[in-house]
Amino acid sequence: MNFSTWMSGIQQRTEAALDAALPPSGIAPSRLHEAMRYAVLGGGKRVRPLLCHAAGSVFGADGALLDAPAVAVELIHAYSLAHDDLPCMDDDVLRRGKPTCHVEFDEATALLVGDALQAQAFQTLSNRLPGVSPARQLDMLHLLATASGSRGMAGGQAIDLAAVGQQLTISELEFMHIHKTGALIRSAVLLGAHCGEATPEGLDHLGRFANRIGLLFQVVDDILDTEASTATLGKTAGKDAAQNKPTYVNILGLSEAKVMAGKLRQDAHTALTPFGETASRLHELADFIVERTF
Amino acid sequence: MNFSTWMSGIQQRTEAALDAALPPSGIAPSRLHEAMRYAVLGGGKRVRPLLCHAAGSVFGADGALLDAPAVAVELIHAYSLAHDDLPCMDDDVLRRGKPTCHVEFDEATALLVGDALQAQAFQTLSNRLPGVSPARQLDMLHLLATASGSRGMAGGQAIDLAAVGQQLTISELEFMHIHKTGALIRSAVLLGAHCGEATPEGLDHLGRFANRIGLLFQVVDDILDTEASTATLGKTAGKDAAQNKPTYVNILGLSEAKVMAGKLRQDAHTALTPFGETASRLHELADFIVERTF
Repeated sequence: MNFSTWMSGIQQRTEAALDAALPPSGIAPSRLHEAMRYAVLGGGKRVRPLLCHAAGSVFGADGALLDAPAVAVELIHAYSLAHDDLPCMDDDVLRRGKPTCHVEFDEATALLVGDALQAQAFQTLSNRLPGVSPARQLDMLHLLATASGSRGMAGGQAIDLAAVGQQLTISELEFMHIHKTGALIRSAVLLGAHCGEATPEGLDHLGRFANRIGLLFQVVDDILDTEASTATLGKTAGKDAAQNKPTYVNILGLSEAKVMAGKLRQDAHTALTPFGETASRLHELADFIVERTF
Repeated sequence: MNFSTWMSGIQQRTEAALDAALPPSGIAPSRLHEAMRYAVLGGGKRVRPLLCHAAGSVFGADGALLDAPAVAVELIHAYSLAHDDLPCMDDDVLRRGKPTCHVEFDEATALLVGDALQAQAFQTLSNRLPGVSPARQLDMLHLLATASGSRGMAGGQAIDLAAVGQQLTISELEFMHIHKTGALIRSAVLLGAHCGEATPEGLDHLGRFANRIGLLFQVVDDILDTEASTATLGKTAGKDAAQNKPTYVNILGLSEAKVMAGKLRQDAHTALTPFGETASRLHELADFIVERTF
């Protein structure tokens, strides 16, 4: 199966699994459920679910088992987007080519959508997973909660807020992104691995891969924010510069940022060497992250 | 030990456990950690932790074991307050006698505080609990996540929002509060019971008690919102009426609301009958909820 067919398959099964995890909009409170589904379904590249499935396949995890962690991570990601777009945060009106949740519904609903999606992530991941011991599943929940909280994604957002209008060094910028984007991407990879027969050494190598991929994702995002149009991005382009946010592009310059992306991809590939052919999907995903043009 | 000494003891150990669960404000991101601590520590009656400990004691659970679920439930409660007070929700400036989180810090920080506290709740409850099997602990996480989400507390908030300015029937009002306040109170009781040797029948009886207590808590809240002053409440009094929110008092009238509170307390006590003396703290808590004057 080529990469693109594999990717479509995972995206489709993730969409179906997200649809099944979210309460139907016919159930009360209907408007909240409708808004949750609006914020999650029908869009997104599903990069985190792809990473989760690809990492699971390294250790022979069953695809059906990987749906729950893939969904849980994507729900956390979707909640963070609904909250980031709020007027008191990035105040954005466009996301995945559609009006943002608070524009389509209202601010209070978008706030509750994020809150409820976060709870749904932990609800989904605490359903018993056949083939994973309860003790290991507890570790998985702990991993996801830690990656989402104040020393992970939410903390990264706080650092991001504080950085607006500031001059950051490359290492300060890296610190911010390791939290803001990196922690959840890392958890997607490690949760997938936990569903298979991952050894401590295997987790170690995958952790190194995940760290590189997290930064790579952000560098590419900054490059796209500079180079691509709003139409291709499906979200407001040039936003970071307009908001005076520090990015890899404005610290390093565009061509140096591209060099950095190439180096991070190389490092990510190198971290996969011990896995040989079993890591081919992760290898291809690193390429995909660099080469995405949408 | 009399009730008041027992209560102070639980409140103190809960404060210490919350303090230990929250990252120190010296750790980055400092301002977020400082704001999280501001939103959680040094205030609140800790009704949910009290219920959790009292329910655990019915089944002989060790006090040290009950700190984690008590903290987790209180963190969920604290996050919901930080978000409810935001301008796009209740827009309140006073909580527990202090400026609300977004007034003391800023809106974006208060949003992230709530997000990070929710994650912290699941992080805390996914630390291995000695003496509870991992499978049971997964059930506990599932219970808390469900109680917090769209078919629990967050869903109740959505129903509450939609109800502003509406005429509700008593049963619609009850439906709202079963979600908004009741779900988390019920989870506090059941999580405590799960830490001990609870039988399915025992959980059943406790569930009935918890349902009555959840409503009782809300009816008393509505009465206090009418009768007490802002100074004694530590939050803005008369807010519900000012915001044109349906309450038990404005649907039933004050004296009927008090009759209802008396009936709910009676029902709560009756649900405890099978437990005899082991449930004395829960019995006293039902009285405390009715008689609290702050």
